[in-house]
Amino acid sequence: MNAPTIGIIGAGQLGRMMALAAYPLGVNCVFLDSSRTSPGGQVGSIVTAELDDTAALIRLADSTDVVTVDIENVPVAGLEAVARRVALYPPPAAIAAAQDRLEEKELFASLGIPTVPFVPVSDRNDLEQAAALGWPLVLKTRRLGYDGRGQWLVHDSDELAQAWEALGQVPAIAEAWIQFEREVSLIGVFGADGACGFYPLTENVHRQGQLFSSVAPFQDAHLQARAEQCLQAVAERFGYRGVLTVEFFHTSDGLLVNEMAPRVHNSGHWTIEGAQTSQFENHMRAVLGWPLGSTAARGHAAMLNLLGRMPPTRQLLAVPGLHLHDYGKSPRPARKLGHCTLVDDDRHRLLERLTQLQEIIDSQQT
Amino acid sequence: MNAPTIGIIGAGQLGRMMALAAYPLGVNCVFLDSSRTSPGGQVGSIVTAELDDTAALIRLADSTDVVTVDIENVPVAGLEAVARRVALYPPPAAIAAAQDRLEEKELFASLGIPTVPFVPVSDRNDLEQAAALGWPLVLKTRRLGYDGRGQWLVHDSDELAQAWEALGQVPAIAEAWIQFEREVSLIGVFGADGACGFYPLTENVHRQGQLFSSVAPFQDAHLQARAEQCLQAVAERFGYRGVLTVEFFHTSDGLLVNEMAPRVHNSGHWTIEGAQTSQFENHMRAVLGWPLGSTAARGHAAMLNLLGRMPPTRQLLAVPGLHLHDYGKSPRPARKLGHCTLVDDDRHRLLERLTQLQEIIDSQQT
Repeated sequence: MNAPTIGIIGAGQLGRMMALAAYPLGVNCVFLDSSRTSPGGQVGSIVTAELDDTAALIRLADSTDVVTVDIENVPVAGLEAVARRVALYPPPAAIAAAQDRLEEKELFASLGIPTVPFVPVSDRNDLEQAAALGWPLVLKTRRLGYDGRGQWLVHDSDELAQAWEALGQVPAIAEAWIQFEREVSLIGVFGADGACGFYPLTENVHRQGQLFSSVAPFQDAHLQARAEQCLQAVAERFGYRGVLTVEFFHTSDGLLVNEMAPRVHNSGHWTIEGAQTSQFENHMRAVLGWPLGSTAARGHAAMLNLLGRMPPTRQLLAVPGLHLHDYGKSPRPARKLGHCTLVDDDRHRLLERLTQLQEIIDSQQT
Repeated sequence: MNAPTIGIIGAGQLGRMMALAAYPLGVNCVFLDSSRTSPGGQVGSIVTAELDDTAALIRLADSTDVVTVDIENVPVAGLEAVARRVALYPPPAAIAAAQDRLEEKELFASLGIPTVPFVPVSDRNDLEQAAALGWPLVLKTRRLGYDGRGQWLVHDSDELAQAWEALGQVPAIAEAWIQFEREVSLIGVFGADGACGFYPLTENVHRQGQLFSSVAPFQDAHLQARAEQCLQAVAERFGYRGVLTVEFFHTSDGLLVNEMAPRVHNSGHWTIEGAQTSQFENHMRAVLGWPLGSTAARGHAAMLNLLGRMPPTRQLLAVPGLHLHDYGKSPRPARKLGHCTLVDDDRHRLLERLTQLQEIIDSQQT
């Protein structure tokens, strides 16, 4: 396979960063997404079509050597049509599981991996069962939720009923509200012939349901080993290929799975400057069946999302040691427009620099 | 200037790597070159035209915010036409000086910077003057030479006359053959408002007139300071903006300038993984008038060119810690098709890894 071409379904920032990692490997990229000016479309060729356009997906499959996704919410029928014609990684079944919060939780339960306690909600009677989780609890739509959308924090039965009403009485899942010490995520990469690698655990901070910042490595050998076991179990279930991310709550009882993403992940953006091989390059290597690159950290790294409105580029680049990643998107409240990364050999100094950077960016956002 | 667009004259590997550094800054790129499948054209939009097509250069200028070059051999008339319409960096006069080996040498002499002894050769009488440099000496065309092309090593008057004949009796320059300890290069970046930065000196090894490998940093505070003075003097002469490279011979008498390149340079490719900010990103920052990024090294780095024929990607990526840069070019003897970089905290271990890598690649090339 000389100069292979990868098809990428979805041309958001994740696809864009995949392409920027693919080019130095001599790999060509073709996106499929609805807009030519999408983040990916700005840096690669693109087939413009909706993600549920199976005929267009088949055309993408027929013009590429392997297909992957930058988003998990692609209709499974389309993914299966692609997979019948060309290699598609991750496997459609893994993507399907991640599309449904209930299926995902049941997957983890079936693998013996502790999750947040949950109750499926499909009718009014289920709301009473949900109350047994205790208050407050979180009601989430089973499908199409991301970045805190489709989620309600409710404090009593009345609020729960109102929330389900507000969600349109769609199939939902009620989850216990967990007291946690921190949120961490683990990014693993699974290649051909059983090759795999795991980045160090990343500690994540959310604001209003959205990832705000990540710091890595979170050094705890016991938690690292436990988290790796979880990813390994999921990967084995699906014969997984590519990057896989699992988010955990770190509680006094250990790790509880929050959710999984069958793809590169915002909490792994620090790997571009902070690891020997970025999650994007390793995803490309994995789906092409090439040897994986080292997942070891290069010192310590902190990633900060740029949400809603970009501070002036000139001001960001004036911050010593700042690495900017502007996704080329137009501003919109709470929209992920870019991120920046700091690296440092010293974790304490890194955290001080991160605090200073947060202050600069917060002063811009208001 | 929101989402600025940079025009890049020439779409070779240098332009390609500029674009890959520009995208994360939210910068758009448009190339001008003769082929859509050029290394740059594969990763960005391209105006297809010859580099001496002034009308096309003007169209490029009119559709971009700032223009730069990935190659110095663009006719100066075209560059000046561009510079009358839009900011063009580096300044055309600096590019012009680098197009002519004699003008370049005289520039350094006028700045009091030691160069290899030289004699201009424009007629038969000059050949006799050249003999005074001693034997052997190197006869080079004044213009359009690169990577050892247009150069003859000659050992006596007869060979010198034959060489000039073979070069077509074009204007040439005879240079003394220098005994040197090593070849080093310094890459500097010059931004707006007098901002500037210098990467650490890089030690270079050539094979058959072509750069083969680079190792950085070459730590010698005295030589570093001396080399920085040279670049500073050249930059001041031209009101320089962008990345500037000067190659030196390190001799028992100190540094002698070999040649300059008014652009990013093969001997700075290690900065992608081995420095806080790559030469490509800093060139983009400089020409856009943005704050420069740190030029500090991250540990030690070694760069090895991939010439003539690419080893199989799979085999390269199996080398632990190897960073691959495939330029997307078709094979041709001695052609620069890509490079790979190793980084290491320990210089001694890095050199061992470099030796092993050279053996792997040499075994592929033969």
